This record gives sequence, C-alpha cells and structure tokens, in this order.
Amino acid sequence: MIFAEFTLAPSIWTSWVAAVPAWPLVSPLLAAAEAESSVSKAEEGSLILASVLLSLVFVYIASKVGGEICARINLPPVLGELVGGVVIGISALHILVFPESGAIASDSLLMKLLELTTSLDPAAASSIFASQSEVISVLSELGVVILLFEIGLESDLQELIRVGPQAAVVAVVGVVVPFVGGTVGLVYLFGIPAVPAIFAGAALTATSIGITAKVLAELGRLSAKEGQIIIGAAVLDDVLGIIVLAVVASLVKTGEIQILNIVYLSISAGVFLIGTILLGRFLQPLFVGLVNEMKTRGQLLLVALTFGFVLSYIATAIQLEAILGAFAAGLVLAETEKRQELEEQILPVADILVPVFFVGVGAKTDLSVLNPAVPSNREGLIVAVFLIVVAIIGKLVTGFTVFGQPGLNKLAIGVGMIPRGEVGLVFAGVGSASGALSEATEAAIVMMVIFTTFLAPPFLRLAFGNDDASEAEPSLETSVSQSPESESSS
Amino acid sequence: MIFAEFTLAPSIWTSWVAAVPAWPLVSPLLAAAEAESSVSKAEEGSLILASVLLSLVFVYIASKVGGEICARINLPPVLGELVGGVVIGISALHILVFPESGAIASDSLLMKLLELTTSLDPAAASSIFASQSEVISVLSELGVVILLFEIGLESDLQELIRVGPQAAVVAVVGVVVPFVGGTVGLVYLFGIPAVPAIFAGAALTATSIGITAKVLAELGRLSAKEGQIIIGAAVLDDVLGIIVLAVVASLVKTGEIQILNIVYLSISAGVFLIGTILLGRFLQPLFVGLVNEMKTRGQLLLVALTFGFVLSYIATAIQLEAILGAFAAGLVLAETEKRQELEEQILPVADILVPVFFVGVGAKTDLSVLNPAVPSNREGLIVAVFLIVVAIIGKLVTGFTVFGQPGLNKLAIGVGMIPRGEVGLVFAGVGSASGALSEATEAAIVMMVIFTTFLAPPFLRLAFGNDDASEAEPSLETSVSQSPESESSS
Repeated sequence: MIFAEFTLAPSIWTSWVAAVPAWPLVSPLLAAAEAESSVSKAEEGSLILASVLLSLVFVYIASKVGGEICARINLPPVLGELVGGVVIGISALHILVFPESGAIASDSLLMKLLELTTSLDPAAASSIFASQSEVISVLSELGVVILLFEIGLESDLQELIRVGPQAAVVAVVGVVVPFVGGTVGLVYLFGIPAVPAIFAGAALTATSIGITAKVLAELGRLSAKEGQIIIGAAVLDDVLGIIVLAVVASLVKTGEIQILNIVYLSISAGVFLIGTILLGRFLQPLFVGLVNEMKTRGQLLLVALTFGFVLSYIATAIQLEAILGAFAAGLVLAETEKRQELEEQILPVADILVPVFFVGVGAKTDLSVLNPAVPSNREGLIVAVFLIVVAIIGKLVTGFTVFGQPGLNKLAIGVGMIPRGEVGLVFAGVGSASGALSEATEAAIVMMVIFTTFLAPPFLRLAFGNDDASEAEPSLETSVSQSPESESSS
Repeated sequence: MIFAEFTLAPSIWTSWVAAVPAWPLVSPLLAAAEAESSVSKAEEGSLILASVLLSLVFVYIASKVGGEICARINLPPVLGELVGGVVIGISALHILVFPESGAIASDSLLMKLLELTTSLDPAAASSIFASQSEVISVLSELGVVILLFEIGLESDLQELIRVGPQAAVVAVVGVVVPFVGGTVGLVYLFGIPAVPAIFAGAALTATSIGITAKVLAELGRLSAKEGQIIIGAAVLDDVLGIIVLAVVASLVKTGEIQILNIVYLSISAGVFLIGTILLGRFLQPLFVGLVNEMKTRGQLLLVALTFGFVLSYIATAIQLEAILGAFAAGLVLAETEKRQELEEQILPVADILVPVFFVGVGAKTDLSVLNPAVPSNREGLIVAVFLIVVAIIGKLVTGFTVFGQPGLNKLAIGVGMIPRGEVGLVFAGVGSASGALSEATEAAIVMMVIFTTFLAPPFLRLAFGNDDASEAEPSLETSVSQSPESESSS
C-alpha cells in the first residue's frame, strides 16, 4: 500500500517514566528499557479510543450520505445506510472491515490512516484492529437492542387488537407463505442445508413498518382502510418476525432441527413474551412511581434501559435473543404514561447507535460473491433472484386473503406488505454473526431487502393508480416520510 | 467461591452444524468434532453482549441508587455515582473489576453470575472478561468525550467575556495556587516524583461548574453578584483545567519535563483550541446550512458528533487528549442557532454514557490503599489530607483577590470555588489509565474530590449566613438543583 512509506516512527513514545510513588525520577536511559510494555499499555487505550472515534466518523458519514441520497430520490434512507456500509466495507473501499470476514489489520484502510497520523506502528496494529472490531461489533449489537426497544415502544398492543382479524390474516399468511416457500425452495431446488435455508426463509417474513409507513404517507394513503390494514399487519408481522428470529437463531445455535426443540423454543418465546407483558402490568405502576420519585437527571431513560437490558439478559440466558427482551421491554413500557417522554429520549440514543448496525451490515456484506463472472458465484445470484421472487409473490397473495371487506384494493394491500427492512437486515446480521449463513446467502438476503425496498414505491403507486385519490393526505409527506423510523421524530 | 458448584455445564452447545452452503446437514457426530471452535466463535458474540448489558445494568443501578441517596441528603448526585462505583467495584462487592487493577475473570462477580446463568464455562470466561472490560472501558471514555462535548456546548464564550476581569482573576489564582502548592508540596514534603505530583496538583485546579451551580441554587444565590463571579470563574476554570489536563497528560506520555515540551504542548493546546474556534466561525454557517438541508432523522446530532469526533481524533493525533477536541467542538457549536436543540439531543446520550465513566472511576478506585492499619498505606492517607488542605486553602484565597467591588462577600466566593467534580475525576481517570498515578495518589485525589464536594454545601451556607438573604431565589431549587449537570435538563 502507498501509505506504508509515510508511517510515522513511534520514537516520541520511547522515553517513559514509570510513576511509582517515592521513586525518584528515573533516568531516560533506565526508562527506555521498560518503555516497550509500559508504552503499549498507556498508548493502547488512547489509540483504541481514537480508532473507535474514527470508525464512528466513517459510519456516520456513510449512513448520512447514503441516507440523504436515498431520501432525495424518494427511497427509504435505511437503504442508503446499507449501501453506504457496502461502499466503506469489504466490498469496496475497505475502510471498515472485520476479522470475521478474514480481514487482518493491514487490510483495513482505517488502520492505515491511524498508522499514518498517530504513533501506531504496524506491529501493534493487529491488537488495536482486534479491539476496534470488537467494540464496533458490540456497539452495533447495542444498536439493534436499542432499535428493537424503540420498535416495541412504538408498537401498541391495543392497536394490534383494534386492527382486527383482517390484519391478523394478512400478517400470518404473509409470514407463512414466504417462509415455507423460501425454505422449501432453497432446500429442494438448490440443495441448501436446512439451517441456512430456514434462516433465509425467515428473513423473508417481516414487512418493514417504517418503510411501509413512509411509502403510504408519500402516497397519502396512510389513513385509508388499506393503509390501516397494512400498518396493522406490518406491526403483527414484526412481532411474528421477532419470534421467528428468536426461534431460528436458537435453532442455529443448538444446530439441530428437532420438533422438541422448536416446541421448547416456541413455548419459551411465547411464555417469555406473554409472561413479560403480564408481569409488566404489575411492574408498570412501580416503574412510573419509581421514576416520579427520582430526582436526578436521566432517571426515566436509565430506569427504562435497565429494565430493557435485564430482560435482554434474561432472554439471552434462556437461549433466546437479546433483542426479544428489548422488544418486550419496549412493549411493556409503551403502555405507561411515560411512553411519549421515553420515545423522545430514546430517539437520540437510537440515532447514534442504530446506524452502526445498518452500516455494519452493509460493510460486512461481500458483494463480490455475487459477481457473475466467477462461475462458483452463479448459484448465489440465482438464490437472490429466487428469494426476490418468493418475497414478492409471498406478500402479494396476502391481499387476496382479506375477507368481509368489499371494495378494498386488495392488490395494494399485498404490494404494501412487500418492503422488507430492519428485521430482514437483523436476520442477515444475526445469521452472519452466528456463522449460520454463507456469504452468498447473506448477500442474497441483503439483495432481497434492497430490491423489495426499491420496488415497493413505484409498485404501490401503480397499484393505487386506478383508485380515486381524493382522500389523499399529501401534507403528511414532510412529517412522516423523512425516514423509515421517523414516526416519533421531533 | 460458592458459585462454582452451580455452574451449568455447556453441554447444550456441543452439537453444532457448520453451515457452509451446499453442504448436506452434517451428522451430530461429525459436528461434535468441530464444535469447540465454531461454538466459541458463535457463542462469544452473544455472551460478550450479555456481559456488557449486565455491566451496564449494574452501572446504572449503582449510579442511580448513589445519585438518589445523595440528592436526598442535599449532596451532588455525581458524588453518589462515584460512591456507587466504589461499592460495586474493586473496593467492595467486586461486581465490576478491571484487568488493569490485576483482577482476573474469577475475581469478577459479574463473570460468576454469567457462568451461573448462561452457558459460559470458566475456561472461556477469561476471554469474555477481557472483551467486557475492553468494551466498558471504551464506553466510559466515550462517556467523558460526550461529557466534555456537553460542557463545551453549555459554555459560552460571550458570557466568559462578560463576567469580566474579576472572574478571570479568581479563575487564574484558583488554578495557579492549588496547582503550584499541591505539586511543590508533594515533591518536597513527600518526595513524590514530578510527573505524578504534577498530575495530582493539576487535579486540584478545576472547580466543578455543575456542583457549584447546584449548591448556589440550593442557597438561592445563583443570580447574586457573588454567584455570578463564581459561575464565571468556574467556567474559565474548566477551560484552564482542560488545557492543564491536556498538557499534563501529554507530559506523562512523553515522560519528561522539558520546558520545550511544555511550550510545545501549551502552544499546540492553545493553537488547537483557538484555531478550532476561529476555523469554527467559518464552519458554523456551513454546519447550520448542511443540517438544514438534510432530511433524514438524527441529522443534527450525527453531523455535530461527527465534527466532535473528528476534532477529538485530531487532538489525539497531535498528542493532546480526545476530550479537548470534544470540548472545542462543543464551544464552536454552542455559538450556532442549533445550540438549544443540540443540547436537548445530547442529553439522553450523555445520560447513558457519562455514568459509565463516573461509576467506572469509582469502581477502579481501590480504597484499601487508604486503610491506616497497613503501615505502607499511611503515606497515601497523609497525601490525601495534604491534598484536601491545599484544595480548600488554594480556592479560599481567590475570594480575597477580587478588586473594585466593595461590599462583596469575599469568603463566600472562595468557598463557592471549593467543590471539585467532573474535571478532577477526569484527571484521576486519565491519570490512572495512563499509568502515571499510583493507586494511593489516585485514591487520594478521589478522596479530595469527595471531601471538597461534601464540605462545600455546609461551608457555603455558613459563609452566606451573616448576609441578608432577602434576594434569595429558592424556587430555582427544583429546576436547577436536581443534578450537577442539570442546567440544560428538560
């Protein structure tokens, strides 16, 4: 690399005084002998912090440049964050790379930049690289935990009940058809092992509430009957998707597909979620009372997050996913009088952590496996095409299952369920982290998310095109359409 | 330890399917052979996340229990966060311990809890412990970066100029006297080497804006003339303290006390700070324009933090501290029309990260070095007593330097400058992380912060006792006195 020549010598650090009290000032000569180990310990901390800060700078730039471009060409910003991640990641610029994909310190442009501008020498770079990757990975996982907490907080059990049977049917059909179609197709048509096939099938299930709400708002259809059914089904979808994710991720961990295992995990997911919500009813007044009693700054946010993190920890301990605990905590706290205030406070926290997740997913996605010039890649590409077809057809059929509501635009309901978003990417991320998904399958899932998200806006416009548009509410566009997660934005 | 007997066997993880595409489902027998390495990789991620979540739960509980108790007995909550950290840390419960203090995984009650409730086995615990400590340390450092960004944002260059010459004299005298008195005393009376002596002397310099403002508000003296001079001087103090910290920390790193070095670092600190502020003037309209142009969620916070992190990185690269960059970024952005909005958005971010720093400082403080029963500890105790005396006298004298303002309560001004807080703890934390401070000296600094903070409220009440209190504004108490950092709290 061209940077190697400019690497600064770490000579400035070579004189170091070990500061034990009552020692006289040791001579520089003596100090130099002990320099190596002392320097590395003292310097490492500030270099790790510097590498994390620099990583966050690139993550934020990638997420905002990508997000803003997408917002301007009428696409969901989350798509831009993902593509931004692809650009700075292993597929393109190599600024943000991770050891899991086989990268070493010298593959990372970020480490080159550190070597160029700080006292970091190439020999110490691999330990800094490992720490930086570790910290960014945990921040990205904390990002999903916060995101699911926020989605739980924005969900509404009462609303889920109100949208009624139609939404439930749409949601269940929209989960079962793509899941079964995707999994069975991958196993029988492509000979993919059951575990990754189930993972990929599961990734096809959950409609993105945020993306769907955005597209509907842009078209002025958010409060139309079709819009309400879509939103209700998407909320249910999200809950189902999270249970499916928890079940699938646990399956991947235990490695075997046993009915007993599925039953155990379904029951523990159900018991955990329902138990948390029932227990939550008792805890809600305690929570509100405690927060009202407290006098110090940040009391609401910290008590809420402590509750969320405890549930996340319990979920992990009983072999579910941390995010399920965070989602359950959000659902419970959504029913308290503190919901609004908490939504406002969680917003900036999500703003700084969630992009680490989306950009990270993009950065870890190696698109080179989809290069058709390499013969071994062609299967991955065919898998992607297959997943996209199943993803679209699996949701299109849901519209036609709506009963007892004549005059509805059934095609529009199906099309409205097409965009996959956060949860689909969560599957890709969790699957990749657990080692269950091959690179080709993960990239195929990401391609599926990108395509369904790309296709939904023009398709939905077409589907609603024949209708009378007098009930449109275009003014919502600026307030709701800014971002997939902007429902509670200030 | 009694927990060892209950440790769950990790048998549930021993069958694992490596999920390479187009592989058939491998038999459990085959899988078991590969289990060890695959399991550790897949499991480690979720165990590290679980350990970090659990650490944050204990940090938040310690910070809130300590903070609330202090708020109720009329002491600054930050003191409670620190004591809460001491309780869960190396000095008492051993829940949160760090490798730097010589602790290993089996010393950590948190790891015991993980082994008890998850699939973690003792053999793998040391790698999880290392990662958990690493991540919590970085989160704590990010906490100080955010704290200093917030302090910068709440500082006001114009206000600093308005409070005028009196505040400047109080600030400068209040920095020079304790610094010189402390450093010279430690070197000549106690034979402590120059570098740690300078560090301890520097830790005596900065009055806590937050604590001082809280105590004044409680007494209804915030808008009195004495109160305004104290606040103005404390703001200046903070800036001086940060420059002193940057200079001292850099000195510790390069290990030698050279006039050239001091000059170089003073100049680079000055050039960096002034240059940033001058350059900031040009960047401010660009910043506001960019943020106004952007349409996606979190645009203000992410652009501001990107700016702050870039400056933090540059500060690190030129051998200053990351926090100086964060403070400078806050000062620059405080002058834009976005200040108010940004302060509101940074609040929840600070709420979740700053306690990790304060509790972490407490947790790392080994109070056992102050046990007078151990003969070798007595010097540390004497150092603490000496630091406390210098800390009080060094600020008391500042009141009597105020000129041209007859009728002022000069004693009250001096007493108002006594409480040390955030910046003093930052010195203890940075000094400890860099290896410059011995445990005894670090503990003595923390004792000094605790004592000055404890003593200020009753002392200040006494000092104001002789005055007419008719101009008191007791109603401010509830809005301003909730927390040392609550000035911008909602």
